[in-house]
Amino acid sequence: MTTDTLVIKDQFPGLAGDWHYLDTAATAQKPLAVIEATVRAMGDDYATVHRGVYARSADMTLAFEAARRRVAAFMNAHEDEIVYTRGATESINLVAQTWGAANLKAGDRILLSVLEHHSNIVPWQMLRDKTGVEIDVCPLTDDGQIDLEAAERILTPAHKLVAFAHVSNVLGSVLHVEHAARLAHAVGAKLLIDGCQAAPRLALDMAAFGCDFYAFSAHKLYGPTGIGVLWARKEILDSMQPWQGGGAMIDRVTFEKTTYAPAPQRFEAGTPNIIEALGMATAMDWLSDIGLDRAERHERDLAALLRVELRKRNDVTLFGPENGLGIVSFALDGVHPHDLGTILDEEGVAIRAGHHCAQPLMEHLGVPATARASFGLYSDEGDIEALLKGIERTRRIFG
Amino acid sequence: MTTDTLVIKDQFPGLAGDWHYLDTAATAQKPLAVIEATVRAMGDDYATVHRGVYARSADMTLAFEAARRRVAAFMNAHEDEIVYTRGATESINLVAQTWGAANLKAGDRILLSVLEHHSNIVPWQMLRDKTGVEIDVCPLTDDGQIDLEAAERILTPAHKLVAFAHVSNVLGSVLHVEHAARLAHAVGAKLLIDGCQAAPRLALDMAAFGCDFYAFSAHKLYGPTGIGVLWARKEILDSMQPWQGGGAMIDRVTFEKTTYAPAPQRFEAGTPNIIEALGMATAMDWLSDIGLDRAERHERDLAALLRVELRKRNDVTLFGPENGLGIVSFALDGVHPHDLGTILDEEGVAIRAGHHCAQPLMEHLGVPATARASFGLYSDEGDIEALLKGIERTRRIFG
Repeated sequence: MTTDTLVIKDQFPGLAGDWHYLDTAATAQKPLAVIEATVRAMGDDYATVHRGVYARSADMTLAFEAARRRVAAFMNAHEDEIVYTRGATESINLVAQTWGAANLKAGDRILLSVLEHHSNIVPWQMLRDKTGVEIDVCPLTDDGQIDLEAAERILTPAHKLVAFAHVSNVLGSVLHVEHAARLAHAVGAKLLIDGCQAAPRLALDMAAFGCDFYAFSAHKLYGPTGIGVLWARKEILDSMQPWQGGGAMIDRVTFEKTTYAPAPQRFEAGTPNIIEALGMATAMDWLSDIGLDRAERHERDLAALLRVELRKRNDVTLFGPENGLGIVSFALDGVHPHDLGTILDEEGVAIRAGHHCAQPLMEHLGVPATARASFGLYSDEGDIEALLKGIERTRRIFG
Repeated sequence: MTTDTLVIKDQFPGLAGDWHYLDTAATAQKPLAVIEATVRAMGDDYATVHRGVYARSADMTLAFEAARRRVAAFMNAHEDEIVYTRGATESINLVAQTWGAANLKAGDRILLSVLEHHSNIVPWQMLRDKTGVEIDVCPLTDDGQIDLEAAERILTPAHKLVAFAHVSNVLGSVLHVEHAARLAHAVGAKLLIDGCQAAPRLALDMAAFGCDFYAFSAHKLYGPTGIGVLWARKEILDSMQPWQGGGAMIDRVTFEKTTYAPAPQRFEAGTPNIIEALGMATAMDWLSDIGLDRAERHERDLAALLRVELRKRNDVTLFGPENGLGIVSFALDGVHPHDLGTILDEEGVAIRAGHHCAQPLMEHLGVPATARASFGLYSDEGDIEALLKGIERTRRIFG
């Protein structure tokens, strides 16, 4: 098997040296284009937005709002539907604490799945503790995909929300979002998608997906930390009350009564993450220039190749489906994932070992932790070879 | 009068060219040290924190927590009391929606002041709308300082919180925090300080101030956007329930029950603003190397000098106290502040014209807007000369 090697490692200062970074699902390294955009935004171009009467601030405001249009185009959505947040976690909490708190009440139900990241579990539990809603958990198929047939059986008109990961951060399994949307809408529920692992790996299309909320972080998408996106269908966003109060989200403030700006500004209190927004837009330009179709193929190819190679060993357990996207979780018999990770580190191979913020999934898999190799556009077969060599050395050490 | 000119403009790429930036109260330009720290954090040193078993991630975790200790030292506080937020606005909302929601009820009262920024008004109004607490407004002295004698008369045991700005973002007036703390504590209320304009301009000392919460943003402190700080007294922070759910803030997650990490991690859900934390710590190093005593003198000298010069004209109204810190608001007779700002922009002078996110204060001053010149450590007498020249030209244009 030959993967579509993109040969772009030299665009990434974070990959310098003989280092094999296989933890892109945790966070992606940043291309020079994003770093340079950040330097410009912090330096030559720096000013606040939405306020200054001077040219630099007006220019920065244009750039900041152009970045919002860039995000909208990246998702095939409308700019008025794009809320800048600190990251996907905040995006989901925003939905839970505004839309959720206003629309869900005791007796209503939320459907999550076994493979959700804590960021798509805990906000709903906190809402449950406040409102008395109930949480149901959709099981997985044997190969670790959200079981939509089971979802169909579980869903009732009491369900007001379905919240699923688009791509599992542990297993790489990919949700059929359109199918999930049809099931949710058939009972009158909204569908929220945690798109953290999907956004860097496949083309997003809000017009086609049919979901109601979509959340992701820029730092997993080759962009800066400290920024993410909440997309919500316009009519839903317009109906939502503000979450945080402050500057920029208001229309008029008096001590008696304050009126709020329309969405999305209503949800962006205070000086926004200006520098980060420009960096995120640049990351999207960079990724789109490569092409999301190529990204998806690259991530599928590398995951498939690693699975093939690991399967040749008789001491490795593989988790997740065969056709996963960019993420492979596995176990080496008799070796704790942390020990594997530590030895691999000595070999210049960085994987993640742990529960991956998905403790319920670990419980389901019957393991305390997995080893996880995850790919980015800079990953190549050489990284896989280094990983396999490191596993072999670990085997020799542990016998 | 000769000011303590620091001669550091060349450290700021954002100040290149013949540009006189007098909008530092909106946001500060970034020194090269901060930009370079950001480049390293996004490039050579980039990794996630708190999770990786590989050396780069362990190193980044050490740097991220060292940054927290840096912030603690900057405030003379303990690292366990430092919560990274997106900015001061989020810090205040966090207090309102956790401590406020848990501790305030109908019949309780909050004392704000006339000069508060919207970010220290709207979160409390939103809490009022949810809980039925009442908001009182402390008047100002004739020269625009929070009138603590009036505060003493207003405060009753029904007051559970006093929330005041340390330095007014419009008038530059400085609160005597220790005095305010004594008044608040005398009736059993907590004291929250909005320190946005104080943190870059005078030495913070949580041990001496006696307040209970302190909030500020990095971007006004020569640091990155997208990060700020909430400091809270340890025993208060420990008593507060989490606000946002997700990764990193949990102890153990099952669908039945989730337990939370101790503070401050409990309040930092999701991948944090890693790059920004390192940039903020570098900004604090940079500022501390210059010295907060010098910063304060510099900001007082420049504000005083500008007031002296403006007072020489007979067509300028000055707002605020004589001894303000780094911020001067004024009006030019017969010229709308926006027109003044626009003409100044043509002269390469950037001021802010507007309500400065302080509409109640504008109402109190009886104006829709003010012109505001605000200084930073890079400001000098040349900036004031350019401003005065621009005002003179505006006068000629408007007659």
